[in-house]
Amino acid sequence: MIDYRQLQAFATVLECQSFDKAAQRLHLTQSAVSQRVKQLEERIGQLLIVRSQPLHPTPAGQQLLRHFHQIKLLQSELLDGLGDAYEQGFTRLSIGLNADSLETWFMEAIDPLLQQSPLLLDLRVDDQDQTHHFLRQGEVIGCISSSDQPIQGGSCVALGLTRYRALISTEFRDRYFAKGVDTESLLRAPAVVFNQRDELQDRYLKTYFDFEGDYFRHLVPSSNAFVELIARGHGWGMVPDQQSQALLEQQRLVELIPGNCIDVPLYWHSWNLSTDTGRRLTEVMMAYCRAHLLPLSDTD
Amino acid sequence: MIDYRQLQAFATVLECQSFDKAAQRLHLTQSAVSQRVKQLEERIGQLLIVRSQPLHPTPAGQQLLRHFHQIKLLQSELLDGLGDAYEQGFTRLSIGLNADSLETWFMEAIDPLLQQSPLLLDLRVDDQDQTHHFLRQGEVIGCISSSDQPIQGGSCVALGLTRYRALISTEFRDRYFAKGVDTESLLRAPAVVFNQRDELQDRYLKTYFDFEGDYFRHLVPSSNAFVELIARGHGWGMVPDQQSQALLEQQRLVELIPGNCIDVPLYWHSWNLSTDTGRRLTEVMMAYCRAHLLPLSDTD
Repeated sequence: MIDYRQLQAFATVLECQSFDKAAQRLHLTQSAVSQRVKQLEERIGQLLIVRSQPLHPTPAGQQLLRHFHQIKLLQSELLDGLGDAYEQGFTRLSIGLNADSLETWFMEAIDPLLQQSPLLLDLRVDDQDQTHHFLRQGEVIGCISSSDQPIQGGSCVALGLTRYRALISTEFRDRYFAKGVDTESLLRAPAVVFNQRDELQDRYLKTYFDFEGDYFRHLVPSSNAFVELIARGHGWGMVPDQQSQALLEQQRLVELIPGNCIDVPLYWHSWNLSTDTGRRLTEVMMAYCRAHLLPLSDTD
Repeated sequence: MIDYRQLQAFATVLECQSFDKAAQRLHLTQSAVSQRVKQLEERIGQLLIVRSQPLHPTPAGQQLLRHFHQIKLLQSELLDGLGDAYEQGFTRLSIGLNADSLETWFMEAIDPLLQQSPLLLDLRVDDQDQTHHFLRQGEVIGCISSSDQPIQGGSCVALGLTRYRALISTEFRDRYFAKGVDTESLLRAPAVVFNQRDELQDRYLKTYFDFEGDYFRHLVPSSNAFVELIARGHGWGMVPDQQSQALLEQQRLVELIPGNCIDVPLYWHSWNLSTDTGRRLTEVMMAYCRAHLLPLSDTD
């Protein structure tokens, strides 16, 4: 049998990214926390935490972490059921998602769930192709991903499509595309890219210009600042329709080539846990996305 | 003499976080890129890149990287001066900064510089206490930091203060603080925190309630979604005045305790390089902040 105090110490160190802060949170000394993690490692017979910055779990550590989060969710529902809600306080809900979903629609989608239950959100952001690893490592109970491949022991449902258009300001159009948009003019004009993992601009160039390779790019890892840099006339970039609507109506932004867009499918992945919170989370996400995102069959 | 083709291969691998993508960008085969990095490591006599995800430079690698970025900036100015601007194209400007600065004022501040010169921004975001490491590792030529300690070989000038207030919705106030705000009621109410490194809420509790320890918290790593969660009535959190103005006027947000605030000083750190771009960057930042941020002497 695993000692759950050891498991909690281990999970808290990873969550806080520090033995010291974990000790503070657990009201223990730092050496007690180190001791518990070490005992757990001896019990399992493997190293569980790689002690370099950032602290991260080994493959064995990932399995334990996943187990711990599943146990916690089941336990908090048990206590809720026993009328122990006050003492228990809040249930932690760890979710992995992409920055654009978080910026544009996620808060509105999840609001009904927050209204009903005392929940604490723990949101982890990465590119939509990368959120899977949060789920695999057991850091989250569900994630929004562009992949439709369920992970082992998990389920996957379709949420809908996010449509991205290449947008520019009218000054930028006059400056770089006075004679029209072709590969040559486009490769002279700088793009705006969220970070090195953002491949939407690559996909646009590949889809509509059959171009693969390097191009001038700003790197701006903030959805707001990304759109602001475009609106100020310093680049072109892929913006989701949910974010651009008002700016397009005010003509602060225009489409690079009207009608050309890149659709990103979004899926909801979660562990196959029959917990109330997990089930309701999936329900509110699906209900919201059915009403507000484009249906997935549109791309067929 | 260092071989700059090797140095460029090394720096591009770290920038792209992949030997494969670096090869594509440099129009080389992947084995040529690996070869060059290896030759450079043999020349220096030390490992330069730690080959694990994410790829990161060793201490020796950091020094080389810093050198490379300094050379690149000097070179691009030389070419500009020689009238070679067209062929050279753009100058890359790597800057480290905190998410709130990027979301609220940075784009407006830097706009005059982008209007004048063909620049490509490469922005790296971290907490204002953490941006220093980008500069030390040679990944950026300047950073916005809350520290006033210049790093060796660098200079430091004051930008100004960002003022943060603890904000809530009126529903949240009625629900948790109907009988007033004290430590007890505050510890029942969930906070909103940007990520594990965001210590502004800790500082507020310490300053105004002499409380140190753990409390209920949502983790929401997006400035927009952070404020939205507060406005929807699910937590209290520290919001910079630049971001809250309109919401306070519309009474969608109110202050937890009117007048209580936390001031975060911001400093501009950069390498002591006498380059035109570096000098103008410092100038536009200082000019903007003098006009739009609170002066630092306000806290004295």
